[in-house]
Amino acid sequence: MNEKNIDACLIASKLNLYYLTGVIFDGYFFMDINGASIIFTRKTADFYDDNVNIIRKPEQIPELLQNMNIPLPATIMLEDDYLSASEWMRLTKVFENAECASNVLRTVRTIKTDYEIELLKESGKKHSELYSTIKGLYKKGMTDLDISYEIEYMARKLGSLGLFRIFGSSMEIFMGSILVGQNASNVSQYDFALGGSGISSSIPVGANGTPITEGTTIMVDVGGNFTGYMTDMTRVFAVGDIPQKAYDLHNIGIEILNEAALIGKEGAYCFELYEKAEQIISKYNVQEYYMESTNKTKFLGHGLGMEINELPVITKTNKQVLKNNMVIALEPKFVLNGVGAVGIENTYVVKDNGLEKITNMNEEIILI
Amino acid sequence: MNEKNIDACLIASKLNLYYLTGVIFDGYFFMDINGASIIFTRKTADFYDDNVNIIRKPEQIPELLQNMNIPLPATIMLEDDYLSASEWMRLTKVFENAECASNVLRTVRTIKTDYEIELLKESGKKHSELYSTIKGLYKKGMTDLDISYEIEYMARKLGSLGLFRIFGSSMEIFMGSILVGQNASNVSQYDFALGGSGISSSIPVGANGTPITEGTTIMVDVGGNFTGYMTDMTRVFAVGDIPQKAYDLHNIGIEILNEAALIGKEGAYCFELYEKAEQIISKYNVQEYYMESTNKTKFLGHGLGMEINELPVITKTNKQVLKNNMVIALEPKFVLNGVGAVGIENTYVVKDNGLEKITNMNEEIILI
Repeated sequence: MNEKNIDACLIASKLNLYYLTGVIFDGYFFMDINGASIIFTRKTADFYDDNVNIIRKPEQIPELLQNMNIPLPATIMLEDDYLSASEWMRLTKVFENAECASNVLRTVRTIKTDYEIELLKESGKKHSELYSTIKGLYKKGMTDLDISYEIEYMARKLGSLGLFRIFGSSMEIFMGSILVGQNASNVSQYDFALGGSGISSSIPVGANGTPITEGTTIMVDVGGNFTGYMTDMTRVFAVGDIPQKAYDLHNIGIEILNEAALIGKEGAYCFELYEKAEQIISKYNVQEYYMESTNKTKFLGHGLGMEINELPVITKTNKQVLKNNMVIALEPKFVLNGVGAVGIENTYVVKDNGLEKITNMNEEIILI
Repeated sequence: MNEKNIDACLIASKLNLYYLTGVIFDGYFFMDINGASIIFTRKTADFYDDNVNIIRKPEQIPELLQNMNIPLPATIMLEDDYLSASEWMRLTKVFENAECASNVLRTVRTIKTDYEIELLKESGKKHSELYSTIKGLYKKGMTDLDISYEIEYMARKLGSLGLFRIFGSSMEIFMGSILVGQNASNVSQYDFALGGSGISSSIPVGANGTPITEGTTIMVDVGGNFTGYMTDMTRVFAVGDIPQKAYDLHNIGIEILNEAALIGKEGAYCFELYEKAEQIISKYNVQEYYMESTNKTKFLGHGLGMEINELPVITKTNKQVLKNNMVIALEPKFVLNGVGAVGIENTYVVKDNGLEKITNMNEEIILI
């Protein structure tokens, strides 16, 4: 807040309340540069301590602060990226004389604490454990939906919290996406690397009822939310014989991740990882298969943590610098007509010497 | 728009795009009082027709409209309730000379079309089908989580889309809530009728690992999203003998719904339903058991449709008038210490002569 000349912040989103206080509650968290740190809540709860105040509405906050001899801020940071415009407009009027600053928490959240890294690693372990069961869940005659249901059920039994938090109004998904055969080439209207048409026009993404047949692939990209911090991971399963071309493309994906892991160290620019992938794609001349073909996916990967899509985004133009304890997922993917999707995705922690993988499992195409 | 003196609207949220165009796409929908109806999108898709324009950014829209000889609006309706403040601020600058009006679609959406009612009834049928399997899913020794996983898995196999759309930043949930025994009395920090503490502080709601034991109840409140339109339904299961008091409270819940169904006709005020419930609660003198005890739930029910919490809300002070083809869920619930939650919830369509129930299934406590 000092850097940005912000005197105080008033946080209202459940996500950032949890990030800053460790609890989710019905209310607001006020923090200022003098060290004030106060919870205002509408409901009683057992996390109460001396710094908790019961309110009916946020308009009561300034008077309560003054009663505590806390100076009203001249500049207040509000969550313009998390609150709806109507919620935000209401809060801008609470501190009527204060200048309103944009939320910087998405940027602050890019660098994880050691505790957050622990939670992410724990999620990665469970995520890998889940994926190691998938081969055994497959039965002949299944559709993409049938295997989705089995994977989701297993995820829950292994402790998945189910809920998949996504930032922004352009994204929606249930627990993840299973793409089988030709459905992999169906365009996503959301900002995912690949699409799939889904089973309802009300949520057009992922599995669409495609029967799983010989000679096609199953791409599994199901979120790993086991700890409140999410890992992202994709693996591909081949049903019987698939063309050598599919294996070749998949191995290019592995090469991209291996190369990116070497250069993705503290101090590297985000765009360098993107460019490395583009160079490898060019070298093998496989542009036509790479990512979502009609509209060309514009990222190689993305930050993640409490949400599946945090900062930084790994794009051609992002000049942001990678720093220790940033967490990113990279997902080079391909679609081969008549076969399906291939490629992989892992979640990594940025370190001094490169990317540390936290979704550890065989990366080859798994024959089922 | 005429009523509110609005010249045009620019819609960006996936939900309202779907409501107005029948498709979800990456872009914007412009509609004006002269009958213009135009899609602007960043991505190609097969729903294209003459009224579709490819754009890179919303700032291109005014010039494109002028090229089509469509007058720029003097007043533009934007989704202040769905867009984040930062998204909304960007769009307010697109039509720089226009006055910005608040979104009225949540109110428009309260009255469902016959097609929407069809989708809701279909969801209600599937929802009842799901609930009729629950008794068979129970096995001795299960925890609340174990039975949650079985119900979710069955829901998916019966065609649930999984995704649970909720309005507002104060609400989050996975597929629904299963409350067993004493966990029913744990406070919800979200705006649900009852709480449950959940298994992670990152999503404190619902099942928390409570073993299902003799003499307790299982309250199942899992969302019914089978068609993109959601029904809401709660039923209670008793494990062996539970006290007569639990049955008495449950029957008061049934009485509230029966009475509300009679008075909840076209023309009734929302608060009348709430007051009827309060009268019945007073008559039996059971205030202490009714709803979330510590913070007193402030509603008897809520509208629903594409989202589980639409308008109107059935509260003490809501003077909104019920109209034909509004859809509401009513959920009188009770917590009996040492036993658990009882009560029911149904989804109804408002008709001339009262509420038509669309979640049809035995309402009594079901012995398992």
